[in-house]
Amino acid sequence: MTRNIVVVGCGAGGGTAAQFAKKTDREANVIVLEKGKFPQYSKCALPYLISGKVRDVVEFSEKWFERAGIELLLETEAIRIDKEKKLLYFIGKKEEKIRYDSLIIASGAKARIPRIEGIKTKNNKLKRGIFVLRTIEDAMAIKSYMEKSKKALIVGAGLIGLELAEALQSKGIDVTVIEIFPNILPSFLDPDLSSLLLEKLKNYLDIRTDCKLVKVKGNQRFRSTVKIGEKEEEIVSDMIILCTGISPEVSLAREVGCRIGEKGGIIINRRCETTIKNIYAAGDCTEYRDMVTGRYLITGLGSTAVKQGIVAGINTANGYAELPEGFIQTRTAKLFGIEIAAAGPISKLMGDVTYGKYKGKTLPHYYPGGGEIVIKVMIDKEEKIVGMQAIGDGAALRANTVALAMLSKTKASDFRKIETAYAPPIAPALDPLIIACEIALKKYGK
Amino acid sequence: MTRNIVVVGCGAGGGTAAQFAKKTDREANVIVLEKGKFPQYSKCALPYLISGKVRDVVEFSEKWFERAGIELLLETEAIRIDKEKKLLYFIGKKEEKIRYDSLIIASGAKARIPRIEGIKTKNNKLKRGIFVLRTIEDAMAIKSYMEKSKKALIVGAGLIGLELAEALQSKGIDVTVIEIFPNILPSFLDPDLSSLLLEKLKNYLDIRTDCKLVKVKGNQRFRSTVKIGEKEEEIVSDMIILCTGISPEVSLAREVGCRIGEKGGIIINRRCETTIKNIYAAGDCTEYRDMVTGRYLITGLGSTAVKQGIVAGINTANGYAELPEGFIQTRTAKLFGIEIAAAGPISKLMGDVTYGKYKGKTLPHYYPGGGEIVIKVMIDKEEKIVGMQAIGDGAALRANTVALAMLSKTKASDFRKIETAYAPPIAPALDPLIIACEIALKKYGK
Repeated sequence: MTRNIVVVGCGAGGGTAAQFAKKTDREANVIVLEKGKFPQYSKCALPYLISGKVRDVVEFSEKWFERAGIELLLETEAIRIDKEKKLLYFIGKKEEKIRYDSLIIASGAKARIPRIEGIKTKNNKLKRGIFVLRTIEDAMAIKSYMEKSKKALIVGAGLIGLELAEALQSKGIDVTVIEIFPNILPSFLDPDLSSLLLEKLKNYLDIRTDCKLVKVKGNQRFRSTVKIGEKEEEIVSDMIILCTGISPEVSLAREVGCRIGEKGGIIINRRCETTIKNIYAAGDCTEYRDMVTGRYLITGLGSTAVKQGIVAGINTANGYAELPEGFIQTRTAKLFGIEIAAAGPISKLMGDVTYGKYKGKTLPHYYPGGGEIVIKVMIDKEEKIVGMQAIGDGAALRANTVALAMLSKTKASDFRKIETAYAPPIAPALDPLIIACEIALKKYGK
Repeated sequence: MTRNIVVVGCGAGGGTAAQFAKKTDREANVIVLEKGKFPQYSKCALPYLISGKVRDVVEFSEKWFERAGIELLLETEAIRIDKEKKLLYFIGKKEEKIRYDSLIIASGAKARIPRIEGIKTKNNKLKRGIFVLRTIEDAMAIKSYMEKSKKALIVGAGLIGLELAEALQSKGIDVTVIEIFPNILPSFLDPDLSSLLLEKLKNYLDIRTDCKLVKVKGNQRFRSTVKIGEKEEEIVSDMIILCTGISPEVSLAREVGCRIGEKGGIIINRRCETTIKNIYAAGDCTEYRDMVTGRYLITGLGSTAVKQGIVAGINTANGYAELPEGFIQTRTAKLFGIEIAAAGPISKLMGDVTYGKYKGKTLPHYYPGGGEIVIKVMIDKEEKIVGMQAIGDGAALRANTVALAMLSKTKASDFRKIETAYAPPIAPALDPLIIACEIALKKYGK
């Protein structure tokens, strides 16, 4: 009998799941329901769509899905699951239902909107001129509005906030970023590296940390009251963009009885199964284990969404696939030309770890040019590599090496034995990554 | 009793050995004998000394050795070992001998000079205007001579030959490189990648492969007869540089009875011991196992010389250190701005391996700019990663990741699970390395 595989959401998780379901079972009916207007696109690229660096963020077009034999229904919202009858109810052009053998919930996440006086209209919508950035629609709205703007206030110095700040500033807009925590990128970098990056970014951007948005007055010309310690200040801007994180979209899953975790995501196992039979989940709506701490978390990364999509897709089509026992969360970004990257959780979540930190050049000392890199390698009590953070050239590719070390449970004493490639115009005899590892080991007297 | 540790040669192997011997046993007398005029310097940097990109290639100065408490005797040549009495005879200012508890032979290698009619004088020396490039002295001689030269012929398209060609050309000299084999860099890259690189380099450089130097006529204005197939041609030049490989310097070791391998190097074990008690060896004069094939080879790499120096140094000072079971030979170079890198032996030495090859961008397709990379990943019958070769941006750092995979015996099916860092301005969602690995696995139907 032909299998019906239904996917809710066409982001990185859902789109990939549909693709791999169809690849695994060519005979299956694979149907994807997407409430937005666009097929699978890169959310990570939205700041670059705003700056104009990128013209099109769609990764897989409607035509692509058609050719792949996958039915894609846009502007179609799933509203209820009947798990006994295995029916999914949805609203598209009209209200309908569809029978599933397997259902994949990849409903993603939405921008979290903080409770702040004065940001909403009476109809509980954001005022005109106040935005979030989560979808293509959001990006288009910002892009069009910024053309008549001079000054933007960005609330939140996470990745999206900072990437967006760079984008807006590149279009000639004066930007101020405020962050409620003492550090920028608090879930990406430890406080020491975060401070270092902040120092560098301050050369390009007005960023204020420990700075809380209290209230907003006005329409289109906003007067925002912020609090730094006990001091209050007013920031005037004609745009405000709220980049204060995401919250997983789990109403469908919660209603049908899927277990929801502490972080608000759908709990999944290694096969991407939820706690309800025949219902799988993938992407930003899920919670899965962090490899180092074993704690459940929402990574919010496109790369892990894709991995979940692959596993969910294969399993729904009667194949067999498993996630790794936990995620490493290898991540990277480029901000004002500065490359940053990390693997593993930030140190404060890991408890008892030791680190080695090294600042050096990416070329031998005698060779001209070359960038600078600051790199921190974390090792646990058993001397396993459990994390890395870096700022500088080649940070991302070095994070990939550490990700492999973490995946293969490499000990620091073995890790430092890597024969790294050396040539004067390319790399020093001892890679900064290895030196950082040596420094960490020395703390154990090794 | 104070230990006498004597090191013959102050290259990467010997200098490092002395350093680590002293670090391990602060009380030991560590004495280094170097027949040249210079303390430890980077041989890999010599082409850049010639181009003027690098001003000083010395890595550890005489002062450094003094401060480290290591006695360095320059212009001092070891001539004979008495293994019974544990004495080393040498000629410095006068002929002398020294007692050793442990001796480290790090006598390096010399440039191999091919037997070609007309390159030598009656005194069996190279004619004026004909050079090799192995030492600072060689580099200085080339640098000074090239000032009045217009045309150079480089014999051998190995790494040194090509790096030197770039250096000379950057100084306005017209360069022709000839290579006797059908491919350039035959011990660095497989024929397919080598051809691809050749194609790219031909945009910058006159390189002729399958081209044999038959004889040389003239003095200072040389007429070289080369043979391409059956066709003979004459190349006129005012300099000739012979870059036809190295041969290990093992006379001292051979005479005392150390086992010499098929490649002409001193055979060492994991502790860098030779077959003679209390005599160790490190660097380009040694032969050690290749990790993948188990065959003994001379890597000629500074990075492996350093690793051997560390192990030899620690062991002579009564510490304990071991080499990995074999070398991975991670290697890299930049030629006319093109980055190349590899790990593991070339494929034809490996016998039964499968590969995946992928050509792609180093950024997502929708993001402007970004380089191109061609990457080849080799896996064996047990699906272990056994090698990698790449041409393009980030080749070297990707080779390091593969080196770790080889060191930790990672299977291709695990390797592809690495969470690689992804962000539009830095790296695509699927790293080219992972895609190449997937392609290799597909050949096994996985």
